[in-house]
Amino acid sequence: MTGSEFDADTAIVAAGEGRYTGTITDRWSIGGVPNGGYVMAMALRALLDATGRPDPLGVTGHFVRPAEPGPAELRVELVRAGRSSSTAIVALSQNGSERLRVLGSATELDRLEGSDAEHGPPPPDLPPPEECLHGEGVLPDGSIAEIARRLDLRISPEHVGWARGAPTGRPEIAGWIRLVDGRPADSLLMPVVVDGFPPTVFELGFAGWVPTLELTVHLRRRPAGGWLRCAIRSTHVSRGLVDEDSAVWDSEGRLVAVARQLAMLPR
Amino acid sequence: MTGSEFDADTAIVAAGEGRYTGTITDRWSIGGVPNGGYVMAMALRALLDATGRPDPLGVTGHFVRPAEPGPAELRVELVRAGRSSSTAIVALSQNGSERLRVLGSATELDRLEGSDAEHGPPPPDLPPPEECLHGEGVLPDGSIAEIARRLDLRISPEHVGWARGAPTGRPEIAGWIRLVDGRPADSLLMPVVVDGFPPTVFELGFAGWVPTLELTVHLRRRPAGGWLRCAIRSTHVSRGLVDEDSAVWDSEGRLVAVARQLAMLPR
Repeated sequence: MTGSEFDADTAIVAAGEGRYTGTITDRWSIGGVPNGGYVMAMALRALLDATGRPDPLGVTGHFVRPAEPGPAELRVELVRAGRSSSTAIVALSQNGSERLRVLGSATELDRLEGSDAEHGPPPPDLPPPEECLHGEGVLPDGSIAEIARRLDLRISPEHVGWARGAPTGRPEIAGWIRLVDGRPADSLLMPVVVDGFPPTVFELGFAGWVPTLELTVHLRRRPAGGWLRCAIRSTHVSRGLVDEDSAVWDSEGRLVAVARQLAMLPR
Repeated sequence: MTGSEFDADTAIVAAGEGRYTGTITDRWSIGGVPNGGYVMAMALRALLDATGRPDPLGVTGHFVRPAEPGPAELRVELVRAGRSSSTAIVALSQNGSERLRVLGSATELDRLEGSDAEHGPPPPDLPPPEECLHGEGVLPDGSIAEIARRLDLRISPEHVGWARGAPTGRPEIAGWIRLVDGRPADSLLMPVVVDGFPPTVFELGFAGWVPTLELTVHLRRRPAGGWLRCAIRSTHVSRGLVDEDSAVWDSEGRLVAVARQLAMLPR
């Protein structure tokens, strides 16, 4: 144990035969609903334990019902144990009702070969964190989102038109992110990182809840310590659905993760 | 039955208790290996049958071992049956060894509400099909890929630098696609469409096999009949891995599907 709330709040206990138990806390909630990335991180702990691998590689979660603070049961089915990676399914349930199903692979990211920068954009050019907008997590009713007490979010001033009542019309957001308690980021934190920013479609004038149906995260390397930079963009908004594509770079400017979520537009 | 090879070659037979059988043919192969999108389409037939929904919505496949021509067994586990969509798992095995695991949701796309063009790019501007490069499917050994006899692929001349020995340095490809036998495209064909083009990284000078580890397809609507337009781009190439992002538009210019795959770079 590291003393970090993230580690404590995603901890699981093996209960035999691919089963685990955990407790979803209210410390990563927004408006009373636990953040999907946080719930997925708990499921990934079970995936890593059952496969005996240290890092997620390519993981997809379907959020079939909202999770809630309280006990959770996890069940893992191993799909394939390979030489360098393994694939498994995790079902996370509460009170006998399934909340999240994950299909994913796990590996040891430090053993991936190949250049860090074969091709791709550099990290976003951001003002220093102290010149960005502090994501204070104030909800429409004036309360503070619990997750905002744990995730230190600094949003580039370019991308907060909606917060000033003047959406930019560009469904993009970029900023710095780290845990408030100083725990270094690792591969397991990535679902929280990519699900921790406000929805991009706020910049199109949409307001309200943007529920995630599906989140896929592809890991590329373990992050170095310090601030992460995250750039999120929606490209296709149609038929009541929106994609959110994210990329995360570490403090040394190396790509750590690429993610996409499918979410529903507010009605 | 429609008389189309695609329908015949993805057909499944219910075998009770969420089980199905099918036969993977050699008609959708490249160099002897069945196209991943084709194998996934068979798995999606089982997902649709078991959920009683006509269309995939958000589906992810992990290709844990290459499939091969021959009998296949499919097993479906229902995760959640909702009001407007359902979620399920499909395992596709051959000779007792699992080849593909799918986690996905299904719905009736015609009932999705919301504008087609809330925000997003138009379909790619392509020369007419007859002025594009016909994807003849000639492999390095001079043989023809079987799938090329069934998928009519017309690639924009902008994106075939690699075929002329002069890769463009831009990992992008775009073109027209339809089935040779005239069967109209539907939502089930989309994994084949997005997995049917040559790899984008050929334009970075890579050559050889680019195995798909994971493919996620998000459907937005059923396509109108006629040619589909597809644009594919890789953004992040690092650590021996590449993402391939695709979007597919129908003959009326409406967005049909958005997809991403995680693949391995040739060594």
